[in-house]
Amino acid sequence: MLSMYEIIKKKRDGYVLAAEEIEFVIKGYTSGTIPDYQMSALLMAMFIRGLNKEESHVYTEALLHSGELVDLSEIPGVKVDKHSTGGVGDKVSIVLAPIVAAAGVPVPMISGRGLGHTGGTLDKLESIPQFRVNLEIDEFKSILKKVGACLIGQTETIVPADKKIYALRDVTATIESIPLITGSIMSKKIAEGINALVLDIKTGSGAFMREYDQARELARQLILTGERFGVHTLAYLTNMDQPLGRAVGNWLEIMECMDVLNGGGPQDLIDITITLAGAMIFLGQKAPSIEEGKQKAKELLSSGAAREKFLEIVKAQNGDAYFLLQPETYPQSKYSQDVLADQDGFVKRIDALEVGLTAVSLGAGRQKSDDQIDPKAGIVIHKKAGEEVQKGQPVMTVFTDRKAVLESVVQRLRQAVTYQATKPEPEPLIFEFLDKDSF
Amino acid sequence: MLSMYEIIKKKRDGYVLAAEEIEFVIKGYTSGTIPDYQMSALLMAMFIRGLNKEESHVYTEALLHSGELVDLSEIPGVKVDKHSTGGVGDKVSIVLAPIVAAAGVPVPMISGRGLGHTGGTLDKLESIPQFRVNLEIDEFKSILKKVGACLIGQTETIVPADKKIYALRDVTATIESIPLITGSIMSKKIAEGINALVLDIKTGSGAFMREYDQARELARQLILTGERFGVHTLAYLTNMDQPLGRAVGNWLEIMECMDVLNGGGPQDLIDITITLAGAMIFLGQKAPSIEEGKQKAKELLSSGAAREKFLEIVKAQNGDAYFLLQPETYPQSKYSQDVLADQDGFVKRIDALEVGLTAVSLGAGRQKSDDQIDPKAGIVIHKKAGEEVQKGQPVMTVFTDRKAVLESVVQRLRQAVTYQATKPEPEPLIFEFLDKDSF
Repeated sequence: MLSMYEIIKKKRDGYVLAAEEIEFVIKGYTSGTIPDYQMSALLMAMFIRGLNKEESHVYTEALLHSGELVDLSEIPGVKVDKHSTGGVGDKVSIVLAPIVAAAGVPVPMISGRGLGHTGGTLDKLESIPQFRVNLEIDEFKSILKKVGACLIGQTETIVPADKKIYALRDVTATIESIPLITGSIMSKKIAEGINALVLDIKTGSGAFMREYDQARELARQLILTGERFGVHTLAYLTNMDQPLGRAVGNWLEIMECMDVLNGGGPQDLIDITITLAGAMIFLGQKAPSIEEGKQKAKELLSSGAAREKFLEIVKAQNGDAYFLLQPETYPQSKYSQDVLADQDGFVKRIDALEVGLTAVSLGAGRQKSDDQIDPKAGIVIHKKAGEEVQKGQPVMTVFTDRKAVLESVVQRLRQAVTYQATKPEPEPLIFEFLDKDSF
Repeated sequence: MLSMYEIIKKKRDGYVLAAEEIEFVIKGYTSGTIPDYQMSALLMAMFIRGLNKEESHVYTEALLHSGELVDLSEIPGVKVDKHSTGGVGDKVSIVLAPIVAAAGVPVPMISGRGLGHTGGTLDKLESIPQFRVNLEIDEFKSILKKVGACLIGQTETIVPADKKIYALRDVTATIESIPLITGSIMSKKIAEGINALVLDIKTGSGAFMREYDQARELARQLILTGERFGVHTLAYLTNMDQPLGRAVGNWLEIMECMDVLNGGGPQDLIDITITLAGAMIFLGQKAPSIEEGKQKAKELLSSGAAREKFLEIVKAQNGDAYFLLQPETYPQSKYSQDVLADQDGFVKRIDALEVGLTAVSLGAGRQKSDDQIDPKAGIVIHKKAGEEVQKGQPVMTVFTDRKAVLESVVQRLRQAVTYQATKPEPEPLIFEFLDKDSF
């Protein structure tokens, strides 16, 4: 007879848990026979003592089997998804999914909501009026089959254990554990029914894994877990020290995505998107190499094919495309104010974490899980790192309906910018490409 | 604004908590604003990362101030208590309190119930019909004043935080932490209003701290904590590898205490009791040294003064002394069976843990917290380590009303005895005396 008490004690003392013990814990916690207070004690012991390779694998597998496994075998082709560990201004999925789908690779994408200072793809998509992200698995499959991509939220039936455990980790300071994160991400991705996966592992001030070595170790464990479950997995380590693109806030970011799909938009966002798309098109066997996949992605963007695919996805998911085409008709924030440069020179850095946190105060994110998001609220960045500015020129503009926070946000953002007299060397955007042979 | 999340994170990462953070946790958990699942995550982080000297002190102090402090200043004299970390057959308090009280030292004793394989003084006292251990503080003080000793249980008002935290630690594998144990023991002892304390720290198979070094470290932290709160604290490290005395089980142990008070009884029980009594009489300033205190204790035992004092205490606490004087009138167990020696030779060892666990199965302890105790049930040991035995002679006798467990208990006890051909060297009973100058 297995005992939760003995399992906690074993991990507390640094021993390796047996497969049946890990399975007992996941089943017991999901079904409610193991109470929160025992699970949180075990999670803390796991956080501090760690899980070895085999324990991590069993943990992921036990999460995976806590719910429904989506079967996409009836849809032809290599199904490829992307996962980002989250950042500020990270709207990549919204441009990426249509490019890759336009290349003929099916993209079944299950995304998340904003978390802490980072935005979420679902919240961004929902700023498009009527856009539905809560679809049944059957609807999801039928849109994927017809349109080639579908972007939805976590359902109740996929990996229910992770949903419950994640909520507990979130309030017990047990989030930032590489094996626990690996289990959480990979169980959901594998349950989705995909064949291949590209990971965007962010590092820097606006990322959850700020330290490079930690982010790289996470990438390693994600790749090895994916491969062990038969999901071909590649990863990029990317820079999240300043926000991605120039827009932070849900509708503002959708507008920026439209800019990119229309052939414009900020270069950093384009570069990351093309790179990830190249890898996905390669994995989806629609290009013989990542380089050639990138080439194809660029063509699909400049030809307008990706734009058409995006509008097709929006319509298939019940979104009202009118506002995408006539953005001037979208509601405006009641208040806006510029953040002015307090000196002449070049922008050295805009702290991504501060931008993310202030965007939440403006209404673009949630402080409590049941907060309503204001889709219009957010920040537009006029001058990014490396760009020249004169004292008194606007560096950013903030948009909000919340007059009370305006002054303090502008003040905080002014302090989030650092300057220098000479043009700084540009920081790399993509640090490293990793696959299973990298380790 | 302090945040439980940040406090958990801090201890998780091995940092030292500030006094105000520890106070915030104890207040919040006691009042219910901090939920169990956050507290258990913190307790696990405390268990693994440890608490430094200052954190331990603040933790003890915060527990202490969660409830009522008993004021014994109206009672003249140096008030002295004893605390044992618990063992099998440990009935010392029941003989000790009357000896020390007979020497003129007030003994305010708050004891516990049986826990796991160990017995509890309260359960033993309650095997005396009508004996009341749940007294109000005012009654406790008035008996202490009149009789010189009073033995009661934990009240609701003394250190309520410990009661709640202990219950949580008990189900989350966070008991065996020296700083957490120190806080739990010392907060209750200090809240009792005593001036001095003698500790009986047990080590060996039947003890909670089986390892000598661990037991010694616990003694060190208990002594330093006591001294810092102005409670003069001495400790003995004693042997709990075999049961203390020859009786295990509540009424059987009361009978053994009467034997000692009548001038008989087993030598190990007498020796430990006299040693602890000597230290208490010395601390209570009724003897100029521990040695002279022990001499006094022996005299009070042999003169019958301690026996008279015990009967006085029993009557003051409403107990029916009739059964103590006419034990043949006490109810008998329905079943009894001898455990026979399976070889000729000398008993080398009787495993204390097994004796404790089987005594619980016989009905002498609780398997669940709401189990009823059978006061008659238990084990009498005829041959202890070092004693000669012939094959087929009884080594122990078990007493129970539970026919179903009889066979398996006898079987287990047979295996708990080891023999050797030659008389073994006696193990020391008291390993070490410790005070604040020992470290």
